[in-house]
Amino acid sequence: MSLLLPLFAIMLIPFAAAGLGLIHAGLGRSRSAAHALLATLCVLAVTAIVFILVGFAWTGYNGGRSYSAITAGVAWNWIGAGPYMIGGAGFDDASAPVAIRLCFHIFAVGLAGVIAIGAGADRWRLGAICISTAIFAGILYPLFAHWVWGGGWLAQLGVTFGLGSGMIDAGGSAVVQSTGGLTALAIACLLGPRRGKYGADGMATAIPGHNIVLVLFGCILALVGWTGLNSAGVMIFYAASSGRIVLVVIDTLLAASAAALAALAVTRFRFGKPDATLTANGWVAGLVASSAGCAFLAPSAAIFIGLIAGGVVPYAVELFELKLFVDDPGGSISVHAGAGLWGTLAAGLFAAVAPGMRGPQILAQLVGVSTLLGFVLPVAYGANWLLHKIGSQRVDRDGDYQGMDIRELGAGAYPEFVVHSDEFVPR
Amino acid sequence: MSLLLPLFAIMLIPFAAAGLGLIHAGLGRSRSAAHALLATLCVLAVTAIVFILVGFAWTGYNGGRSYSAITAGVAWNWIGAGPYMIGGAGFDDASAPVAIRLCFHIFAVGLAGVIAIGAGADRWRLGAICISTAIFAGILYPLFAHWVWGGGWLAQLGVTFGLGSGMIDAGGSAVVQSTGGLTALAIACLLGPRRGKYGADGMATAIPGHNIVLVLFGCILALVGWTGLNSAGVMIFYAASSGRIVLVVIDTLLAASAAALAALAVTRFRFGKPDATLTANGWVAGLVASSAGCAFLAPSAAIFIGLIAGGVVPYAVELFELKLFVDDPGGSISVHAGAGLWGTLAAGLFAAVAPGMRGPQILAQLVGVSTLLGFVLPVAYGANWLLHKIGSQRVDRDGDYQGMDIRELGAGAYPEFVVHSDEFVPR
Amino acid sequence: MSLLLPLFAIMLIPFAAAGLGLIHAGLGRSRSAAHALLATLCVLAVTAIVFILVGFAWTGYNGGRSYSAITAGVAWNWIGAGPYMIGGAGFDDASAPVAIRLCFHIFAVGLAGVIAIGAGADRWRLGAICISTAIFAGILYPLFAHWVWGGGWLAQLGVTFGLGSGMIDAGGSAVVQSTGGLTALAIACLLGPRRGKYGADGMATAIPGHNIVLVLFGCILALVGWTGLNSAGVMIFYAASSGRIVLVVIDTLLAASAAALAALAVTRFRFGKPDATLTANGWVAGLVASSAGCAFLAPSAAIFIGLIAGGVVPYAVELFELKLFVDDPGGSISVHAGAGLWGTLAAGLFAAVAPGMRGPQILAQLVGVSTLLGFVLPVAYGANWLLHKIGSQRVDRDGDYQGMDIRELGAGAYPEFVVHSDEFVPR
Repeated sequence: MSLLLPLFAIMLIPFAAAGLGLIHAGLGRSRSAAHALLATLCVLAVTAIVFILVGFAWTGYNGGRSYSAITAGVAWNWIGAGPYMIGGAGFDDASAPVAIRLCFHIFAVGLAGVIAIGAGADRWRLGAICISTAIFAGILYPLFAHWVWGGGWLAQLGVTFGLGSGMIDAGGSAVVQSTGGLTALAIACLLGPRRGKYGADGMATAIPGHNIVLVLFGCILALVGWTGLNSAGVMIFYAASSGRIVLVVIDTLLAASAAALAALAVTRFRFGKPDATLTANGWVAGLVASSAGCAFLAPSAAIFIGLIAGGVVPYAVELFELKLFVDDPGGSISVHAGAGLWGTLAAGLFAAVAPGMRGPQILAQLVGVSTLLGFVLPVAYGANWLLHKIGSQRVDRDGDYQGMDIRELGAGAYPEFVVHSDEFVPR
Repeated sequence: MSLLLPLFAIMLIPFAAAGLGLIHAGLGRSRSAAHALLATLCVLAVTAIVFILVGFAWTGYNGGRSYSAITAGVAWNWIGAGPYMIGGAGFDDASAPVAIRLCFHIFAVGLAGVIAIGAGADRWRLGAICISTAIFAGILYPLFAHWVWGGGWLAQLGVTFGLGSGMIDAGGSAVVQSTGGLTALAIACLLGPRRGKYGADGMATAIPGHNIVLVLFGCILALVGWTGLNSAGVMIFYAASSGRIVLVVIDTLLAASAAALAALAVTRFRFGKPDATLTANGWVAGLVASSAGCAFLAPSAAIFIGLIAGGVVPYAVELFELKLFVDDPGGSISVHAGAGLWGTLAAGLFAAVAPGMRGPQILAQLVGVSTLLGFVLPVAYGANWLLHKIGSQRVDRDGDYQGMDIRELGAGAYPEFVVHSDEFVPR
Repeated sequence: MSLLLPLFAIMLIPFAAAGLGLIHAGLGRSRSAAHALLATLCVLAVTAIVFILVGFAWTGYNGGRSYSAITAGVAWNWIGAGPYMIGGAGFDDASAPVAIRLCFHIFAVGLAGVIAIGAGADRWRLGAICISTAIFAGILYPLFAHWVWGGGWLAQLGVTFGLGSGMIDAGGSAVVQSTGGLTALAIACLLGPRRGKYGADGMATAIPGHNIVLVLFGCILALVGWTGLNSAGVMIFYAASSGRIVLVVIDTLLAASAAALAALAVTRFRFGKPDATLTANGWVAGLVASSAGCAFLAPSAAIFIGLIAGGVVPYAVELFELKLFVDDPGGSISVHAGAGLWGTLAAGLFAAVAPGMRGPQILAQLVGVSTLLGFVLPVAYGANWLLHKIGSQRVDRDGDYQGMDIRELGAGAYPEFVVHSDEFVPR
């Protein structure tokens, strides 16, 4: 297969980032809209540069140099050992298979980095976003990506412990979405809620997104980006046949479709009217959940996975917002961590496996899920907690009153439009 | 040719749906904008799921199982007979040629389904949209698509009656655009005009679209989507050579360009100033008209086809709005049915044909046009009339006052912006 | 390599035009937003039609018919001599290599034509835009494109004068961006500033862009468009290997990323707060600068080129606005001409060259830069000056008060939104 085929798929991934950027901006306040999208642009920039400087060396690739720790006779391949500054990657045809991996990663890590912006909307400082994202792209993503996509220990679970094919994650439900979504959880907890979100009595105020057109349009962009993301991942890491790559695109659309309709139905029956933003969140959750198994799922399984992802999202959003008092304007935690973990597990439940390998494959996926919860989340929290101690990641009180655009950028996103956007912040 | 080449073209089709979604939302009222785009998302979701459950079985593919009725010694191949739930389609390399057809169809039927939203803007209930679209994707589109793209009787007209190559429709002027556009006509007639559109004296009120930026931006997205749609259709159904596929992209751009300039010129000379929304409608009409013949037209023919499509649109819009009292905020009838029928016919007039086959080819296209008007339109009208009897497809009086967003979704699209949008609805 | 691979890359180029269109509209006033995007659509339409009628005949292609002037024993190949109306280009597989060049050019010339709209924002008449752009697409672009991409004298500098590989411009820093950017300079000078931009005392008023969401979203679209543009150019004109085309996509992202961060840092340290619109301009400047060398640059060189492009943009914008009194709302001059010339030169400084060819290659690029400044700019100015004499290209005084939308199109872009947009125009 020509290398250019995965390259074209990669070239569509920015639409996923653009879609999430619009969704986050639209679900935030009008006075923080420019900030949200500038943050998206900055995250794409920071991740690309940091990943090429150091991240790719540690991510490595299957067959590349890496470090292993030998414990109890098993080699735990835990980090890549490539040269920094991609010193070793040439761009002649011989080294092109490495270059295409690098190319995929710099777009995928950008997408993963964008996720947390939704959870920190309306209060996460731009400088902190850049530094936090640099750590994410330089250390956290490379480590986990190496484990799953770089020949690391999670990918080797099949060889080392007989767990099916090892952990599988065709398009990144775990590597891209869950790492980003768990970082979002860490950020939302550290920043605390927006001023005015919760009253003194603990009652939550519903602060509506300022532009639902952006949110829903972003969903369609995300679909295109995801067809690129999933098919590129499958082509690059799983060397799938053409027929399977057609299946990837079909399954991606089906999962998103089922999830959107599930979220629509759930909100319709619970609230009497369907909720547009939760339906949008459902759509994206379907995309997220489709990624891990997309190349190995029957269409009916993709529909089922989507139904669960989309049906759960409204409850998950409510859980975080009303019970756990975690203010996540973009729904990033529920959509990316929640559906990402579900998709990772579901790939074990439904992917085509060799006879007798269902149990081991599920176990491999559960090891992946446990690693995300037991390692990625604490590290993401710890690193961002440290940053937060060094200098607050949250905007100051003036920012709550002025909005992020005026406070941090000195100008609003919509200077000619008359808006009323200050009614939620208590005086 | 690798299957992945048409797949990449297919992956761009959602931009056509996104473009139409933005155009419809932008040409509607601000208080229905979220509804218009949520409807777009729901249509994509419903069509994908319904089509995979039952639609593809009836659409079938050239060489697949189908039912024929023998009349006067001629076999009328009228419906596919594949298994439901795509039971028979595998995703190994052997069955991939069927899978790529399925993949094309689930994106094309979504695009076709989106068209009618423009005609029902500001008053078509979301639940009715979903049910009406399910019927469209489950029955109407599969039947007609089978006839043209699945080896059905319209495609066989060349073999059975010596009509050139049978009806040709490379990118779907008939199968996608006209079926959608004629459904739009049925919907607009059934729903009746928006309250306030026509005064007691029958005078029409010009209700301007609320966001022309969305409309014009949507046009460029639609161009990208159409290059994908047309080239994918040509690759999959007409097995064209590489040179012809380059021609498809060139002709698509030329037809849209000529059509936009024609609409610009017509409105400039009739009204003294060019009309932005009619120029946008003209652009899309050019895309629509280009589809049927795009692989078989000289560039000069594509320009001519576009000029007619774009030049006629302003008159067609006026005819429906002022003479026939059909309220079609998005212009979907004129743009998709009007230019779709014209493009279908024009493929017969201008496509390269074997010597002596001009007349028969034109006749084949006319049979297709007649089938659209004599079968698709009545069925679309009848099915939606029945739905309308069972439960009104139109929003109630409250919806006219509140707008679709508040009435059906419980929240507006632009909650922070100050708008004045109630001046058109009489108290 | 299949012709369809460059074709897919070409199909993404409209996103670059869409991105610039949104950036220009967003950086202009709300009351000219529909006009800005309608102008974008018209430019795409006019350039496509004019280029296919006459432009391609003069652009020609390497190995096609052309005219040469013999001076001092050197053949200066200065213009293509193909048939008009692309009479000679067939669309069978034999002539497909010519057809793919034509296809690339009609999208690239559209992108180049869109650039000047940003400089003429809020005051350039639509009719004048169409005529000016027709001249650009019919004469100016074809001439320069022939010289660099059609086997003309700039491409031949290596053969005729031993200057390295002749002038190289993989993705169009010179051919697309600089020709467009220098035309923007001519237009901005001829039109003069917007009323209210400069006070009687020469003090500039900062007129903020009306929608920064459009601007920043446009940047991500532009990234996708540029990956298409750069990779298509490399595939078509430089027959690069697959590995190099992967490098193109990586370098494009890196240059944009470095440039955005550089502009962010410069504005942060100069003004105390980062400036969102200048960061967006920086991002695009990085894309622009990446084009010429993208296939031949190490990633570190792409980062460096981006850093310079983005770091200089804020100063360049200030120079034109505050010192030279050139009102360029979209920043098109600094971004496209400035970074375009820098990218053209930088390709000589950093591209991989044969040993001992660094100096000659730099010289070849400098000849290209000099030709842009010494020929393209004067011709663009002269032609537009002539047009301006025949009939003013600038809107009349009423247009300054009403905005372009009302004055030229008779309707606003946002008719339902309450805006306050008249405070900058003196009574």
